[in-house]
Amino acid sequence: MKKQLSEIGVAGLAVMGENLALNLANHHFRVSAWNRSYEKTAAFLERAGSLPVTGCRTPEEFVASLEQPRRILLMVKAGRAVDDCIEAFLPHLDPGDILMDGGNSLYLDTVRRERALGERGIRFLGVGISGGEEGALHGPSIMPGGDEGAWPCVKKYLQTIAAQVDGVPCCDWVGPEGSGHYVKMVHNGIEYADMELISEAYAFMRDYLRLDNSCMEKVFSRWSKGVLSGYLLDITAQIFRRGDPEGEGLLLDRILDAPGQKGTGRWTGVAALETGTPAPVITDAVFQRSLNADVELRARGAELLPGVESTPPVDRTAALADLEAALYAAKICAYAQGFALLAAAEKNYGWKLNYGGIALMWRGGCIIRARFLDDIKAAYDRKPELENLMFDEFFRQALAVNLPGFRRSVAAASLAGVPMPCMAGALNYFDSCRTRRSAGNLLQAQRDFFGAHRYERVDRPRGETFHTEWI
Amino acid sequence: MKKQLSEIGVAGLAVMGENLALNLANHHFRVSAWNRSYEKTAAFLERAGSLPVTGCRTPEEFVASLEQPRRILLMVKAGRAVDDCIEAFLPHLDPGDILMDGGNSLYLDTVRRERALGERGIRFLGVGISGGEEGALHGPSIMPGGDEGAWPCVKKYLQTIAAQVDGVPCCDWVGPEGSGHYVKMVHNGIEYADMELISEAYAFMRDYLRLDNSCMEKVFSRWSKGVLSGYLLDITAQIFRRGDPEGEGLLLDRILDAPGQKGTGRWTGVAALETGTPAPVITDAVFQRSLNADVELRARGAELLPGVESTPPVDRTAALADLEAALYAAKICAYAQGFALLAAAEKNYGWKLNYGGIALMWRGGCIIRARFLDDIKAAYDRKPELENLMFDEFFRQALAVNLPGFRRSVAAASLAGVPMPCMAGALNYFDSCRTRRSAGNLLQAQRDFFGAHRYERVDRPRGETFHTEWI
Repeated sequence: MKKQLSEIGVAGLAVMGENLALNLANHHFRVSAWNRSYEKTAAFLERAGSLPVTGCRTPEEFVASLEQPRRILLMVKAGRAVDDCIEAFLPHLDPGDILMDGGNSLYLDTVRRERALGERGIRFLGVGISGGEEGALHGPSIMPGGDEGAWPCVKKYLQTIAAQVDGVPCCDWVGPEGSGHYVKMVHNGIEYADMELISEAYAFMRDYLRLDNSCMEKVFSRWSKGVLSGYLLDITAQIFRRGDPEGEGLLLDRILDAPGQKGTGRWTGVAALETGTPAPVITDAVFQRSLNADVELRARGAELLPGVESTPPVDRTAALADLEAALYAAKICAYAQGFALLAAAEKNYGWKLNYGGIALMWRGGCIIRARFLDDIKAAYDRKPELENLMFDEFFRQALAVNLPGFRRSVAAASLAGVPMPCMAGALNYFDSCRTRRSAGNLLQAQRDFFGAHRYERVDRPRGETFHTEWI
Repeated sequence: MKKQLSEIGVAGLAVMGENLALNLANHHFRVSAWNRSYEKTAAFLERAGSLPVTGCRTPEEFVASLEQPRRILLMVKAGRAVDDCIEAFLPHLDPGDILMDGGNSLYLDTVRRERALGERGIRFLGVGISGGEEGALHGPSIMPGGDEGAWPCVKKYLQTIAAQVDGVPCCDWVGPEGSGHYVKMVHNGIEYADMELISEAYAFMRDYLRLDNSCMEKVFSRWSKGVLSGYLLDITAQIFRRGDPEGEGLLLDRILDAPGQKGTGRWTGVAALETGTPAPVITDAVFQRSLNADVELRARGAELLPGVESTPPVDRTAALADLEAALYAAKICAYAQGFALLAAAEKNYGWKLNYGGIALMWRGGCIIRARFLDDIKAAYDRKPELENLMFDEFFRQALAVNLPGFRRSVAAASLAGVPMPCMAGALNYFDSCRTRRSAGNLLQAQRDFFGAHRYERVDRPRGETFHTEWI
């Protein structure tokens, strides 16, 4: 009996690829797998046991093992390797076949690839996948974009293996061209901000309130059951319960405070700058990782720079309530910036994005999954053309309630010398967005003074410009 | 009698090119001028009167009018036009001729052009020029970089027309490749920060201290005579003395608070992100221009977002002293970030830059010229390998003195709802740089938890990494 052709192929069997292939096979899809070196393929076949998988030795054999139109999910390292892989498959593909790039590719590369492959009749999708190894195996958040005609052919597979929340898969069509990867990039930018905000709350409690670890564990556990509930606070609370496998005390206290980063946060910041979309909380989070990673600089700074004496507040309970308010309010501002980046892409690239749908996709599987995203979905249901997430009635109300504590926390950190750049950036973003009369008139006067850059007048129509000889 | 060949040619006669050509001719250099449309050349010849200038109708005639090796200063719009112009001249040039791009080109374009032209024997310089129209005519700051062999051939011309401070020209050799344009870009990034910081001080005085214009004029005038003295505070004070040419009151109050920007600030931010160099004050200044330019968003925000009731402090004199301290300290932090960006380029591109020399070039002609730059020069004279400008003994002392006022100002603005993102960003940068124990351990624990990104330990050598199964 001739073996049935596979429904979908996975190319690249590093941990993400392997787990996604298993996830597909666990859902009874017939899967072909290929890897540049066959050893990984062999190991995968062993791990897959009796699941419906086929291991292939060459691109040609791999492509031939798939039913038409072929569905191929590339899970190779972003960059050159994606182009190499496409080139290896291309001679064997037929018009109408579907290539999906499931890696962390820069959306601009995806735009380029979709265009080039489209000319040859190959349908290309840029598929953002978030959730790490565990997500890949048990249900990630999947953000596909590109050639929309291909969507009905792959929808079943992607939506089945995605995380499910309230019976809704965390995977839906995003939009054309590089929009899937762009949305994934913004997800990661928000993730940077979210993680940094939590870390700043930790610094505030540890270095200003002088709370011990068991106290902080209680705080994070409590917060993770309230409005802030979500994956990142959950794991934070768990981190405060994890002993050092190599000795006494908490593992957290033995971890070097030098965080890493892989680039998607940086890309988000660059996209913000290039589209003129204010996203200070995201860029500050990226910068803060770099700054904290520079352990030597900070050690020199600790020796050389003037310090500050601070005493913890008398009423720590009140200070903690303020801090929770600050974390929640700052998170609203951070997400507002992330969604503004989605709007900027719509404007720049002419993509039509479904904000509420994107919020739904982020409710499960991915890193920023949180209760919060239901509120965002509701906000965009109320008003699909919402100008800024903060302007929604629910979030306005939430900001109003939490604002006093937000302000007091930022002020206290400034006085106590605890760095909270993202909290402060979020507050300044909020205040800037509600400033009817900014200081931009002085700045524009300066520009006209030294560079004859001209200015508009408050008592004249927009677009009419003036120049003054200032001296 | 045959007319003598010109010593230098200026191509492109928009306001900057025309004024630089006049500046050269005013210094008795024989100048040829060319413009794509001859009208501008004719107008220039008329303006130049009896000065030693030659107007040319074609690239060929222009090139032929110059002594060898030819010196050509391109003053055309950054981007495509530079490449077009180079292409127009190339057939007529000889090996050894020197092309200088004096526009605001992106340093990466300059790197590319220098390489391509070098292969054809043409020596290419990327020349950053700052100072606006007035500077171009009377003495700008000039930052040349590229093919070092060409420097002795053009040095006399550039140094003569540059601004002079204490007998020292604000022009010296910067380094190879795109370093001249890079340094100019960083200058502009610092300029963005400087202007935004002054604007934030204005917002603080106007909206929190409730000072009237005549009061603020006095404050800015006083500040412009102290440690903050420099061009930008000078013109700020003058702006507060300029009546509205179209009616009563101060012109400043009639200018729409929607500032513009042309892109060099954005480039600086992108360079900071791409090299992993924390420069939040610069990126926040860029974002704040975009935010303030969005008048409609702010108007909606003013209606919808919760406000804050603030009362001015009882002791406004003390608050003003604090604000001056904040402006000075924040300025130190902003410049520290700018100089860190220079160091990042050295590391990235292998350029050797002379920080003290760069500070000297910025003392005159350009927008950020200020007394302050002498102190920076002195700092790099004391220690050419200074890790961070804030670590210099003079600036450490200055920070120590001004820190309490800096902290109080940022805290007061946070409570009063006056946006001061760059002041707050500067303070957080300062505090982050002196934090021996950051919150980066929690962030890295999160990364290891969800993504197996591994961590280093405080009790193990750097580079040794660990992963924990957290659950």
